[in-house]
Amino acid sequence: MSDTWINNNRLTAQISFLAEIDKLKNVLRKTFIMDGSRLENTAEHSWNVALMAVVLMEHANDTSLDLNRVIRMLLLHDLVEIDAGDTFAYDTQGYLDKEERENAAARRLFGILPEDQRGEWMDLWREFEDGETYESKYAAALDRLHPVINNHYTGGASWQKNGIVRSQVLKRLAPVKEVSDTLWSFALEILQKSIDQGILLDDPIAEEV
Amino acid sequence: MSDTWINNNRLTAQISFLAEIDKLKNVLRKTFIMDGSRLENTAEHSWNVALMAVVLMEHANDTSLDLNRVIRMLLLHDLVEIDAGDTFAYDTQGYLDKEERENAAARRLFGILPEDQRGEWMDLWREFEDGETYESKYAAALDRLHPVINNHYTGGASWQKNGIVRSQVLKRLAPVKEVSDTLWSFALEILQKSIDQGILLDDPIAEEV
Repeated sequence: MSDTWINNNRLTAQISFLAEIDKLKNVLRKTFIMDGSRLENTAEHSWNVALMAVVLMEHANDTSLDLNRVIRMLLLHDLVEIDAGDTFAYDTQGYLDKEERENAAARRLFGILPEDQRGEWMDLWREFEDGETYESKYAAALDRLHPVINNHYTGGASWQKNGIVRSQVLKRLAPVKEVSDTLWSFALEILQKSIDQGILLDDPIAEEV
Repeated sequence: MSDTWINNNRLTAQISFLAEIDKLKNVLRKTFIMDGSRLENTAEHSWNVALMAVVLMEHANDTSLDLNRVIRMLLLHDLVEIDAGDTFAYDTQGYLDKEERENAAARRLFGILPEDQRGEWMDLWREFEDGETYESKYAAALDRLHPVINNHYTGGASWQKNGIVRSQVLKRLAPVKEVSDTLWSFALEILQKSIDQGILLDDPIAEEV
């Protein structure tokens, strides 16, 4: 972006950043939107999980968590996909260099911002990726739960298209178990119902996960 | 939604609500995404303005504003469009019954939530609509600035398609003038640049707005 805005370096950098993150609207996920008409993009997904965090907050085992930090984390957690692409949750090959690709993306993208902001955004993204704080675990739980709900309501569209079985989904849902008994029960029920309806395949190792 | 989840009425209502708000991804705006390839939907827009609020916060004249409330307001401010549709900013006919349509939409949509949450969401939406608090003015400023930036970067795609002239855009941008000298200067500059580039039509009454 070559424009300089009102001779203000900070604003110019920030507008460049905003022009850049618009690209997240063109990153397609493997999950369908709920009417099944098309794949979801990552910008929509980010909006969706941020609102989920607000709606479902009461079900966190520790409701003293900082919801505002969770919301911000979820809004920016997938920006790196602009460079690194969406790595499908069950793509073991893609996961091999996912971290490296995403680190480079974070450096480039957040690097567009003025220096003090850069650090703030990078820290939030890093917190989400590290998954050590309770806030990042709760954020991850919603990030993992979201495609499961969408899959259930679209007749398992993405599960079936990609041959996903219960044990794989259960493994992805681990953060849910860590942060919320209620949401974990819900997750188990939605998977069982999906299997009963024949929209998710069961597999022998599911019991052990 | 007929499912009942883990015999938990609150969660069941919340999941119904989440299934409902997914529909915002199918509400198309009149603005294009920045690569000009397609119209933007309202879910993406909501994500975008929430992040804009964070990025541009320092430019608010009063930086003591409650940014967390702004973010939540922006995430939910357009949910009513699920029922009421997107009313184009320059559609004077559509604006005649916009309030009525959106009030009914808010009652139905937020009415899906458990009662205590319903009130909270309704209050935040009402605050945005009333535009009396500083937070709601700052939120509105970003909501109005966003399509202007996108128009500029897409060669005035939506302005030209809809025959929009400078005075109309200036009028829409009034909340920006109220909350931020820096963003107001930026808005004036982006409009002037757009006119110089021939992507926005000037008009005689622009000076008086």
